[in-house]
Amino acid sequence: MKVNGTHYRTIWPSENDRKVIRIIDQRHLPHRFVIEDLGCVDDFVVAIRDMHVRGAGLIGATAGFGMFSAALHAPGDRFDTFIEEAAQRLLATRPTAKNLTWAIDRQLAAMREASSGEPDAKAEQAFVTACRIADQDAEFCRQIGLHGREIIAGISKKKQGQTVNILTHCNAGWLAFVDYGSATAPIYAAHRDGVRVHVWVDETRPWNQGAKLTAWELGMEGIPHTLITDNAGGHLMQHGMVDVVIVGTDRTTRTGDAANKIGTYLKALAARDCGIPFYVALPSSTFDWDLRDGLKEIPIEERSSDEVKYVTGRNREGRQETVLIAPADTPAANYAFDVTPARLITGLITERGITAPEEQAIVQLYPEHI
Amino acid sequence: MKVNGTHYRTIWPSENDRKVIRIIDQRHLPHRFVIEDLGCVDDFVVAIRDMHVRGAGLIGATAGFGMFSAALHAPGDRFDTFIEEAAQRLLATRPTAKNLTWAIDRQLAAMREASSGEPDAKAEQAFVTACRIADQDAEFCRQIGLHGREIIAGISKKKQGQTVNILTHCNAGWLAFVDYGSATAPIYAAHRDGVRVHVWVDETRPWNQGAKLTAWELGMEGIPHTLITDNAGGHLMQHGMVDVVIVGTDRTTRTGDAANKIGTYLKALAARDCGIPFYVALPSSTFDWDLRDGLKEIPIEERSSDEVKYVTGRNREGRQETVLIAPADTPAANYAFDVTPARLITGLITERGITAPEEQAIVQLYPEHI
Repeated sequence: MKVNGTHYRTIWPSENDRKVIRIIDQRHLPHRFVIEDLGCVDDFVVAIRDMHVRGAGLIGATAGFGMFSAALHAPGDRFDTFIEEAAQRLLATRPTAKNLTWAIDRQLAAMREASSGEPDAKAEQAFVTACRIADQDAEFCRQIGLHGREIIAGISKKKQGQTVNILTHCNAGWLAFVDYGSATAPIYAAHRDGVRVHVWVDETRPWNQGAKLTAWELGMEGIPHTLITDNAGGHLMQHGMVDVVIVGTDRTTRTGDAANKIGTYLKALAARDCGIPFYVALPSSTFDWDLRDGLKEIPIEERSSDEVKYVTGRNREGRQETVLIAPADTPAANYAFDVTPARLITGLITERGITAPEEQAIVQLYPEHI
Repeated sequence: MKVNGTHYRTIWPSENDRKVIRIIDQRHLPHRFVIEDLGCVDDFVVAIRDMHVRGAGLIGATAGFGMFSAALHAPGDRFDTFIEEAAQRLLATRPTAKNLTWAIDRQLAAMREASSGEPDAKAEQAFVTACRIADQDAEFCRQIGLHGREIIAGISKKKQGQTVNILTHCNAGWLAFVDYGSATAPIYAAHRDGVRVHVWVDETRPWNQGAKLTAWELGMEGIPHTLITDNAGGHLMQHGMVDVVIVGTDRTTRTGDAANKIGTYLKALAARDCGIPFYVALPSSTFDWDLRDGLKEIPIEERSSDEVKYVTGRNREGRQETVLIAPADTPAANYAFDVTPARLITGLITERGITAPEEQAIVQLYPEHI
């Protein structure tokens, strides 16, 4: 998608040296657009763990390139051990994110199937696979957009062309994937078709992905939007100011329970209470085909309490500054995700189409996982 | 309640000069404890509007003293007009707060019934009434504590003395009243009785009353507590980590619909979904006896979008600093309250006892309003 009119992806190999992988360091958005070069496994681990990159698809794509980087740097005499250690370190960065496991497993399989057992061949295979993971992520999101725009177009038709108000939580935008986004793809597609849309952007505490990232990327694409606190969505839904909720997910069970940024469950409850459709958009790489009970089985990442007690933004002099918003000695808890049970979800928007959040319907779209 | 071991109320006439009313300027908490002197009607209007003071009971008490200040300064030849103008200006500060109307109406009636029609007699009557409003607010909150602690004690008994986990939203603590608080009064009372309690404190965006005020006052009273984002409560409830939710209210209809800080409705939905009791604590001054449909009839204050886009806290050098957390040109909306329908409320904790949130039950406690 566009940054000041120029097309960008969130991750790409450097034009001059494919050993160097470039990312947008999202910690500096929206105030500064900073590109960071990642060169070794450590760089990738830090970038994912410390949220230079974040979001389901982008975590997967970054891990994919991270495994390529591992293959590049693995010493010939202990190639497999080095690769295995790199995989474990990358896996440990974000426990809830399914795309992480998915991408790493795919890379491990690809390297096993390399044309020869030589490190060079394996690294080459890992590069090709990392690029494929990234390309497929972008393509899947584009397909999600084509399916999801029909939902928005349908509401627009019912409203006789009046603006369709969409609420989203966190950033499941192109910044969370390689391009297009999951929850935002239908919005971008509908907007391009001339459908009038307006997005309510949950600020998404504690990391403020909505305020920092979603508001920024929607602004860059010219999509009308309004920033709100995470507390506000229920009131808006009670008063007919939201037509549909579309969110992303970090891991979804084969039964349709969806883990997403903390607070998503509260929005799903409000949507149900107010009779508003609630959709979860995801590429198939986010499904965890092994799980049936999201509440019991999906691990929920706990992050530093400092993310709750400190807020970072731009001060009056234009410098990035971090401020303490609570008593210094107050304990804080920081659960990063919650699970929205399938019973509260209207449908899942996938690259293969829209499905009910029920095992039978899901595996009908993905018969390879029956 | 206590500030570093010394008992304070949130508002009181100066010991040396009762024309000067003293408040805790809550904008500086938790980092600085600042006492502000209010001397004329303008001071009171600014203090309420710009949230030097806030919270149902304290807004009422401040308006009460504000009307006393108006009576002190009203010129003899246009006393009634001056008083009426002051009342209108105070009323316009916070449209959702019922205690504001309640306190101002009570002062207007008191001045009408003054021993003589002379300005001095009216001002004297206004002073006595303002003090009564404040004393009654404190006493009502104390009574709410006595009734509400039975709920907590009951849960403690069921849990065989294990810690009772209470979730609260915003600050309905002693800082929101003259003393004790509404939602916190049962917690303070139970704690004093030796019941083991722990409070989950919603940070309460955008103004962060939970992070700034509730965490601070619970800390000062030695109540175990943990700060969380507003997004987190649903997850905690899904996982059995909350035993009861207790919140305050800024206006409650005679049918039990309760307006409270934006986001309260979302917590009520989660409590219902997880089978957790959800209580609203209020003194009778917060009832709006004229209203039956909270969603349609309670006016919802909209505040500046800057409160959403900017966050204030203490920077590394210990200075108060405000930072921008979104793109500078992003539009933001700031609805300050939402309405929790009575159907989601387990009970109302009032100074006269606990009642079902139903008109018949409520007016049984308050037969003067049948």
